Parts: sequence; C-alpha cells; structure tokens
Amino acid sequence: MVRPEVVLFGDSITEQSFRLRGWGSSLTDTYARKADVVLRGYGGYTTRLALFLLPQIFPLDSPKPPAAVTVFFGANDAALLGRASERQHVPLEEYTENLKKIVRHLKKCSPMMLIVLITPPPIDEDGRDAYARSLYSDQARALPERTNEAAGTYAKACLLVARELGVRSIDLWSKMQETEGWQKKFLSDGLHLTPEGNSVVYHEVIHVFDEAWLSAQAMPYDFPHHSEIDWEHPEKAFQQPKCA
Amino acid sequence: MVRPEVVLFGDSITEQSFRLRGWGSSLTDTYARKADVVLRGYGGYTTRLALFLLPQIFPLDSPKPPAAVTVFFGANDAALLGRASERQHVPLEEYTENLKKIVRHLKKCSPMMLIVLITPPPIDEDGRDAYARSLYSDQARALPERTNEAAGTYAKACLLVARELGVRSIDLWSKMQETEGWQKKFLSDGLHLTPEGNSVVYHEVIHVFDEAWLSAQAMPYDFPHHSEIDWEHPEKAFQQPKCA
Repeated sequence: MVRPEVVLFGDSITEQSFRLRGWGSSLTDTYARKADVVLRGYGGYTTRLALFLLPQIFPLDSPKPPAAVTVFFGANDAALLGRASERQHVPLEEYTENLKKIVRHLKKCSPMMLIVLITPPPIDEDGRDAYARSLYSDQARALPERTNEAAGTYAKACLLVARELGVRSIDLWSKMQETEGWQKKFLSDGLHLTPEGNSVVYHEVIHVFDEAWLSAQAMPYDFPHHSEIDWEHPEKAFQQPKCA
Repeated sequence: MVRPEVVLFGDSITEQSFRLRGWGSSLTDTYARKADVVLRGYGGYTTRLALFLLPQIFPLDSPKPPAAVTVFFGANDAALLGRASERQHVPLEEYTENLKKIVRHLKKCSPMMLIVLITPPPIDEDGRDAYARSLYSDQARALPERTNEAAGTYAKACLLVARELGVRSIDLWSKMQETEGWQKKFLSDGLHLTPEGNSVVYHEVIHVFDEAWLSAQAMPYDFPHHSEIDWEHPEKAFQQPKCA
C-alpha cells in the first residue's frame, strides 16, 4: 500500500499548522486513510534558507516523491531592511528567483507533482506593534519590522512565479483582506494565524487540491471501509488491497 | 535527513485523532522538526482485521521501520455478542492472541521499535444509549452494545500482553476513571473522545515516550533553529545536517 504524500513546506505558519484547529491537522483529518500529510515547517526560515533544505527534503532520486507540496514562504523574506527583523530580509528579486529554484527543483523531483505556492498572509501592523510591546514593553521598536504593503509586494511576486512556471497558487494576502476585521479575526499577533485564519488556509488548499487531481472525496481508502467487509469472511476484503 | 517515524495504529479513536484538539495533532506539533507522526487509524476495525493490515503497513523488509508505534485496538473487539454491534465482537482469548501477533510482528519488523499498547477507553453506557437514541429514536437498541465492564476485561488482557511480551502500555481504561465526571468529560458519545479525552491520551503517550528514548525535548531538530544560523553565512549551518 503506497499512499500519496502531501508535504507542507514553509516557515512558522506551516510549522505551527498542527496547533489548535491548525490547517495541517485539518488536512490530515480530511485525508485520513487516503494520503499522508508530512510537516516540513521551519520557523524563521526564508526562501534563501529553504534552498539548503531542498536536496534533503526532496531528494531527486526518491523512489516515492510527494504527490503534492505546498510552498509557503515569504512572511520572513518580506521583513524590512533597517528594522528589527532585517536579518531575515530577502530582496524581492532574490525571493522571486528562490521561489523559481524551489519550483524547478520540485518539478525535477517529479514532473507529476502538484505544486501549490501560497503567498504570505497580510500583516496587521497594529497587531505586530502590540505583540512587540507585550514582549519588550517600552523597548519595543518604534518602526514596524513588517508592513502589509511589503507583504503584498512579495505576494504579487509569488503569484507571478506561479503563473510563469505553470503551477497553482493561493493568494492568501488578498483572500484574507476580503473579510472585514481580518486583522484580528485571522491574525493572532499581526502575522501568525488564529484558528479562523487557519481555517482560511485549509479551505483554500482543499479548494486547489479538489480542482486538481487530489480530491479527498474522489480518492479511495487505502484499506476497505468496515461497512464493505464481510465479517464472516474478512479475508475476502483484503485479497485485493486498494492502492491509491 | 532521516526523521524517526511514530505510527499511530488503531481504530476510530486513532483515525479521529487529528480532529479538534486531537491527540495525533498534539503529538505532531510536539515532534515538529524532530519526528514524523503517521496516521494509521481505521474506524470500526478490530484486532482481527488489524492482522490483515500488518504486512502492508509494517513490511518486514522495510529499510526504515518506524521508531515507535502506538497500538490502540479493543474498543470494537469488546462489543458484546447478541447486541447491535456483535459483528465487531472478537472473543477475549482471540483479542489476546491477536495483540500478541501484532507485537511479535512489530518486533520482527524492528527489534528497536518502541511499542506502546493502549487499552480501550472506559465506556459510558448512558452516553452510548443517548447517542443511539439520537440516531435511531425509539428504535434504539434496548440493551447496551458495549459495557464498561467488558471494556475493562479487554483492558486488563491488553496490559497482561504488554507485561508478558515486555512492551510498554497505557491503562487508559483505569486512568480516565480516576477523574470524577469522566463519562461526559472525556467521552463524547460514551466511546469516542472529547478534546479533554484526547488530551488525556496525548499526555499519557508523551509520558511513555519521555520515559523511553523518544523524548521530544531531548531530540535534535532535523535542521538548525533559525537562532543558530549565521545570517551572513547561512551555508555554514547546513554543512553538517543534523540527523536524529
């Protein structure tokens, strides 16, 4: 039985996706008995650092490459120069090139792979400020280390990469801002996701997977549902194990 | 980078472990960047059916057997003969033998594997009854299809197997009943787990893993924490990738 694998590759927003009502947990539940969801989230990482991980997380000679990968970086790349998080800053052009390198590597890993680029979420600057003050009190930085405008620029670049390389994308930056009160509804500290924010990501990913060839509803169980088993002769149900 | 794998093998209580505050989600979050949690839960399954899955989920020739497996069956095996769920019933002696076969197979798969047997949870007979009535109204079965006493008998047998074969165990049946109001606090329909019930399982599993050689705190990250990276020369941090 070889189940397809779905790898969640990204920064802290991916790493934390199995916390309270996280989008990773919800995906795992939706694909239970059908596909495996694999967590590869690295808090604080940027696309520049992600390049170092590619050969090991996605080896080109893997006998079983993932069926799908979500690529969810940019929130750290978009940190501003000259501000508190500047060491994470990756210039826009380099971010674009790095994303392309990631996509090209994944395609090389498997031309069949369903690749989904997710833009960084919007930034609630007030929320970031309140968060910084809660940590550092009066020593909090006077100027925001991330702005919504900068995140939007990186989001647009991400969507362009997806279009140019012919892979799917989720415009999370725009999607979240369609909802009034998105700042507090979807973001817990101006950047990371609330349970409702996690739900947005989950539904967007499911939507893209459904449109592609990875609809959980359409996928077979790896082993028979208990209602399909002849309980007098259970061996019959297992003679031809289903493989996805 | 080869991360250790933790496989959750069981029935619906395992299958549903990635729902709201599920114990599977919590384990995945705890072991993020350290070990992979793999969901192998099959609603309605008994130890008799589990035997059919063993060769495929745990092939003996696997180059990378799991580091740890939780084996969590019995809730269905303990369904009573002559009642609504009797087709799931597995006689106590056969349940014992099946559990032994599972443990022996896993040991053959890898003598190093950390095997944890989890007993079935207690049964809240009133809760089961209310659940049946909510589904079938007056046609609900007059007699319980599961009793707490029967579940307790299977739980004791499970603990004996663990002792006899020298593997670890979690006495969930007893543990839950130590808390007043366990019936509604830990069980949603008299059998499946509430978020609080999931939390009990999570903490028990973590406790056993910590005592053994799988303490999340003691395990290294698969790749460097961002605070360990020299951002001027990030390549240095990735020259010697850490392997767990």
